[in-house]
Amino acid sequence: MPHIDLPQLPGMAGLLAGYPDTAGALNSLAETLLRGPSPLTPAQRENIAAHVSRGNECTFCAETHGAVARHLAGPGGADEQTELMAALLALAGKVRISGREVSGDDVERARAAGADDRMVHDTVLIAAAFSMFNRYVDGLGTLTPKEPAHYERHAGFLAANGYLRPPG
Amino acid sequence: MPHIDLPQLPGMAGLLAGYPDTAGALNSLAETLLRGPSPLTPAQRENIAAHVSRGNECTFCAETHGAVARHLAGPGGADEQTELMAALLALAGKVRISGREVSGDDVERARAAGADDRMVHDTVLIAAAFSMFNRYVDGLGTLTPKEPAHYERHAGFLAANGYLRPPG
Repeated sequence: MPHIDLPQLPGMAGLLAGYPDTAGALNSLAETLLRGPSPLTPAQRENIAAHVSRGNECTFCAETHGAVARHLAGPGGADEQTELMAALLALAGKVRISGREVSGDDVERARAAGADDRMVHDTVLIAAAFSMFNRYVDGLGTLTPKEPAHYERHAGFLAANGYLRPPG
Repeated sequence: MPHIDLPQLPGMAGLLAGYPDTAGALNSLAETLLRGPSPLTPAQRENIAAHVSRGNECTFCAETHGAVARHLAGPGGADEQTELMAALLALAGKVRISGREVSGDDVERARAAGADDRMVHDTVLIAAAFSMFNRYVDGLGTLTPKEPAHYERHAGFLAANGYLRPPG
């Protein structure tokens, strides 16, 4: 049961509906980081978000963004196996623990795999942002659906519409 | 030395100046959470931000927001000694570790000290947001000034102008 009174909607959806004063800024940040200008594709960015959320054991965020990444990557699948994505996910995993965990070697590994400054920046900021979203969702004890169908449906909507349009 | 090429400005200032695509959404979020509608005063909210930043050992954020809180609280000083603020800072400290650390007891302690749903919500979200800002600032290895005068000057500007006006 959530720690505060919220609309009967799972995870972030209940928080965004119940607290409209802060929803706008949070949605704008998600849209900017996951869909705005970046050398990383939206699928790659959703994979970073899902990776951090899995590390934080935030089931709602991990299932949602994992499913969005699959929707966006399409039948060809994701590219988590590339050296570049492996290095960026490792960097994101350090940021998840603490900003102070990131070493010059983590960044050099990403550069050796083809990352430029902007990719490093965007990876660190997305990992930091999901360190926020995960804490917001779990810190208030929001509802976590168990059915995979819920996440598929919600992820299909987010893959098609992004984070600025309210769910229909 | 920062992990990426940035303007020679400390902490968040270098990131906001170097990455304008993401600066707008980050500034809007800070303004909304620290200055927007809330039953918590701006000084109380800055104290929550400083408390989380100290826990994360993010010197730039801890010194900046600690100084902003002092500016806003004025000569009467802050109210960190009240039961309410002690309970909200303890709640923020749990969120800092993980959203999953927050228990019903943590929230009950805050309610017993006078917190309503909105205060609990705003405390959790501010603590979550500084879990992001701290990771962004330290994960990219930004410059951390040593002189207290730097933080006093920067904090005076933020106390007077908030987070939407670029530093002059």
